[in-house]
Amino acid sequence: MTGGDTGRLAAMGRAARAASAQLAASAGSSRDAAIRGAAELLRSASAEIIAANRDDVRFARDKGLSAAMIDRLALDETRIESMAAGLDDIARMPDPLGRVLAEWSRPNGLDIRRISVPLGVIGVIYESRPNVTADAGALCLKAGNAAILRGGSESVHSSRLIVSLLRAAIASAGLPADAVQMVPAQDHALVGQLLAGLDGNVDVVVPRGGKRLIARVQRDARVPVIGHLEGLCHVYLHASADTGMAREIVFNSKMRRTGICGAAETLLIDADAAPRVGPPVLAALADAGCELRGDARARELDERVGTASEADWSTEYLDSILSVRVVDSLDDALAHIRRYGSGHTECIVADDAAAADRFLNELDSAIVLHNASTQFADGGEFGMGAEIGISTGRIHARGPVGAAELTSYKYVVRGSGQVRE
Amino acid sequence: MTGGDTGRLAAMGRAARAASAQLAASAGSSRDAAIRGAAELLRSASAEIIAANRDDVRFARDKGLSAAMIDRLALDETRIESMAAGLDDIARMPDPLGRVLAEWSRPNGLDIRRISVPLGVIGVIYESRPNVTADAGALCLKAGNAAILRGGSESVHSSRLIVSLLRAAIASAGLPADAVQMVPAQDHALVGQLLAGLDGNVDVVVPRGGKRLIARVQRDARVPVIGHLEGLCHVYLHASADTGMAREIVFNSKMRRTGICGAAETLLIDADAAPRVGPPVLAALADAGCELRGDARARELDERVGTASEADWSTEYLDSILSVRVVDSLDDALAHIRRYGSGHTECIVADDAAAADRFLNELDSAIVLHNASTQFADGGEFGMGAEIGISTGRIHARGPVGAAELTSYKYVVRGSGQVRE
Repeated sequence: MTGGDTGRLAAMGRAARAASAQLAASAGSSRDAAIRGAAELLRSASAEIIAANRDDVRFARDKGLSAAMIDRLALDETRIESMAAGLDDIARMPDPLGRVLAEWSRPNGLDIRRISVPLGVIGVIYESRPNVTADAGALCLKAGNAAILRGGSESVHSSRLIVSLLRAAIASAGLPADAVQMVPAQDHALVGQLLAGLDGNVDVVVPRGGKRLIARVQRDARVPVIGHLEGLCHVYLHASADTGMAREIVFNSKMRRTGICGAAETLLIDADAAPRVGPPVLAALADAGCELRGDARARELDERVGTASEADWSTEYLDSILSVRVVDSLDDALAHIRRYGSGHTECIVADDAAAADRFLNELDSAIVLHNASTQFADGGEFGMGAEIGISTGRIHARGPVGAAELTSYKYVVRGSGQVRE
Repeated sequence: MTGGDTGRLAAMGRAARAASAQLAASAGSSRDAAIRGAAELLRSASAEIIAANRDDVRFARDKGLSAAMIDRLALDETRIESMAAGLDDIARMPDPLGRVLAEWSRPNGLDIRRISVPLGVIGVIYESRPNVTADAGALCLKAGNAAILRGGSESVHSSRLIVSLLRAAIASAGLPADAVQMVPAQDHALVGQLLAGLDGNVDVVVPRGGKRLIARVQRDARVPVIGHLEGLCHVYLHASADTGMAREIVFNSKMRRTGICGAAETLLIDADAAPRVGPPVLAALADAGCELRGDARARELDERVGTASEADWSTEYLDSILSVRVVDSLDDALAHIRRYGSGHTECIVADDAAAADRFLNELDSAIVLHNASTQFADGGEFGMGAEIGISTGRIHARGPVGAAELTSYKYVVRGSGQVRE
C-alpha cells in the first residue's frame, strides 16, 4: 500500500460522507431515476462490459481459478440483462426513506413521529461476482446511502466499468456521483482501512463472500457488520410430515442450488416418521447424486447413506452433500439445531400445527419456515426486490437485508411551546 | 485481576446466555410479575437499602467525591419509592416480544411475518447512580434479555443489594435468577473482558455515564455499542419565533436541569429575530445566573454576554453555561449544527411552518423538535415508560432506547409445501 492509496481512500470516505448528506435530502424519484438510468446504461454498454469481463475471465484462468469461480465471474448478454432488470426492480420498490414508522401523541400535546432516514455510508466488501457491484450500489442508493464498494480483484475490469456507468447515471439524475465509489487498488491493507471506518466516515460494513472473507471482516471491523458467517440450515421432518411434501422440500432445500447460504446442510428425521418418510426422501437425494452422511439409524434407511463424523454436524458443505440424523423428538431436533446451527434458516415439515408452532416460536434463527423450502431465504423471494445479503446478527437488520433494512430512523417532535416540568 | 475473576466473568457470560434462552421463551406476564415483585422488594427492603447506601456515601466522602456526585449516589425513602414506581411503570408497558412487526403474503402463498424477539445478552456499564441498577435490569428483563451489569465502584453496596432483590423477584416469578447478574469486582480489566463480548456471550453493550466512560467503551468494545458520546444540543430561534415562546423554551432547554444530555449547550439566534427576541431570552438566562458566551453580535444583545472561543461551539458544558451565536439564515444555522453538533437533539422555535419543516427534515440528529424544549429528549417523556439511554448511533436503536428498542426480530414463514423454482 502506498501513502497515496491510503490518502485516496481517506478522501473517498470524506467524499462519501458529503454525498450521503445530499442523498439523505434527495427525492425518491431522483434516486429511482438514477437506478433506472444505470439499468439503461448497462443495457446499452453490454458489449463493452462483456469485453471488460473477458479480461477478468482471462486473468482468472491464468490464475488457475476453478471453473465454478470463473462461471460466477463471467458475464454475457443474458446476465447483463438480468442485472439491468434487477436494477429496474429496485427502482420500482417504494421509497424506504421518509416513512412514518410510528406516530403518537403525548398528553402534553407533543406529536412524536419516527421517520426512516438513511444509514449513511455503507462499505460493501465482496468477492468475484460482478453483478454484486450493480446490486449493492443500487440498493445502497435506493435507501439514500453512499456506497464504497470493494470487489474481488478477479472482477476488477467488469466492476470498474459497471461503477462508472452507475456514477454516470447518478450524475445524470442530478445526484452526487460519489454516491457510489469503488476502492481503487487490490491491496489488502486498504480493506483494513475500510474496516477501521475511514475516520468515522463509514457507518456499517456489509461483507458478501466466502467464510474466510466474512471471518476476517467480523474479526477486524471497527464498525458494525451486517452479514452472516455461514448458513448451516436444517430441515426437520416431524412425525406428522407428509411424505410427498417432505421429499419435495428436502430435495429443493438441498439440491436446487447447493452453493447458496439458504441451502440445507443437515436433515433431521423424527424416529416416528423415519420408516415411512426416510426411504423416499433419501432415495430421491441419492438418485440425484447427493452424498449422504448419516448416523447409525439414518444408515438403516438407505444403503447409500455413509457415516457422518461429529464434524459433519457443523459443516456447511455448499455442495451436494447432506448430513442426516434420526432424532427421537421435536425437543431433540431443537437441541441439535441450537447446538450446531448458525442461526440462519431452519424448516420444519409437519402437518401437526402445534409442533410447527413450537418449532417456529422456540428456535431463534433469523428465518424459521413451516412446510417450505429453506431456499426461500432470499430478499427477492421475500418480496424485497433485492437483498444486499442475509444477516444472522441480532443488532439492526436480521434475515434478508433489502433497501428498507439499510435505513435508520430519527424522531421528529412537533410542539406548540411545551417545556418540561 | 485474578484468574478466578476472569473465569468467574466467563462463567457469568455462559449463565447469561442460558438465562436468555429461557427468557426468550417466557410469558410476558412472568417477566412483568418479576418486575412488579422487584418493586415490592425494593419498597419492603428500603431500610436495608438505605443502610447499604450509607456505606457507599461514606466511601464516596472519604474518596473526596464532589457534592454533586454524592447527591447522585445517595438514596432515601423518596428515591427508593421512585425507583420502585419506575419498575411498576415498566411492568405496565405492553410486552415488546412476539409482536408482529410486519406481515405479508407472497404470490406463491407463503405467509411471512416479522416477529420481535429479544436481543440476547446486554452488558450495561454505568457510573455512580444506583437507580440505574434497577432501571437497566428491569428494562432488559422486560424485553426478554439477560443483563450483565457493571456499576461504578461508588455504588457497590447499594447496587449489590438491589441486584439481589431483583434476582429474588425473578426467581419467585419462575424465571432464571441469572437474567440479571452484576460483575463482582471493581477491577477495570474486567470491563475490558465484558467489552470483548465474553466469548460471544454478550450481544450489545450499553454505556451510561460521563464522556470518559463512553469514549473508552466506544474505543475498546468488540461488540456493538448503543449509546451516545455527548449531547451537544442546539436551540435555533428563527426569524418567525414568538418572543415569549422563545424565552420559555430556551430557558427550559438550558436551565431545567443542566447536567443531562438533552440540555441545550448552544443557542443560535437568527439575525432577523435578534433585536426582538435576543434581549429578553438572554436576560432571563443571565438573571438566573447562566453564564453566556457569545460571538460579537450576540454580545451586542446583552452586556452580560462574554466572549465565546472557537472551542465553546464544541463544548458540552453540562453546567449553567450557554454559547450564543447570531446567524444570518436558516441555512447558516443548519451548517453550524452540522459542523459542531453531536447528532443528539436540536430544536427550532419558529411560527413559519416551512422553515420548521426544513429544519426537521434536513437535520439528521436523532431527535429534532419544533417549538418544544430539548429536555423532552427522554424515554419517559416519549412515553416509553423508561429508557436505558439515548443513542446517537445509526445502527439499530436511535434516540431514546426503551424496552421495545432492546429487541431484534426474526422471520416466521408459513407455507403449504412450496419449493423454489
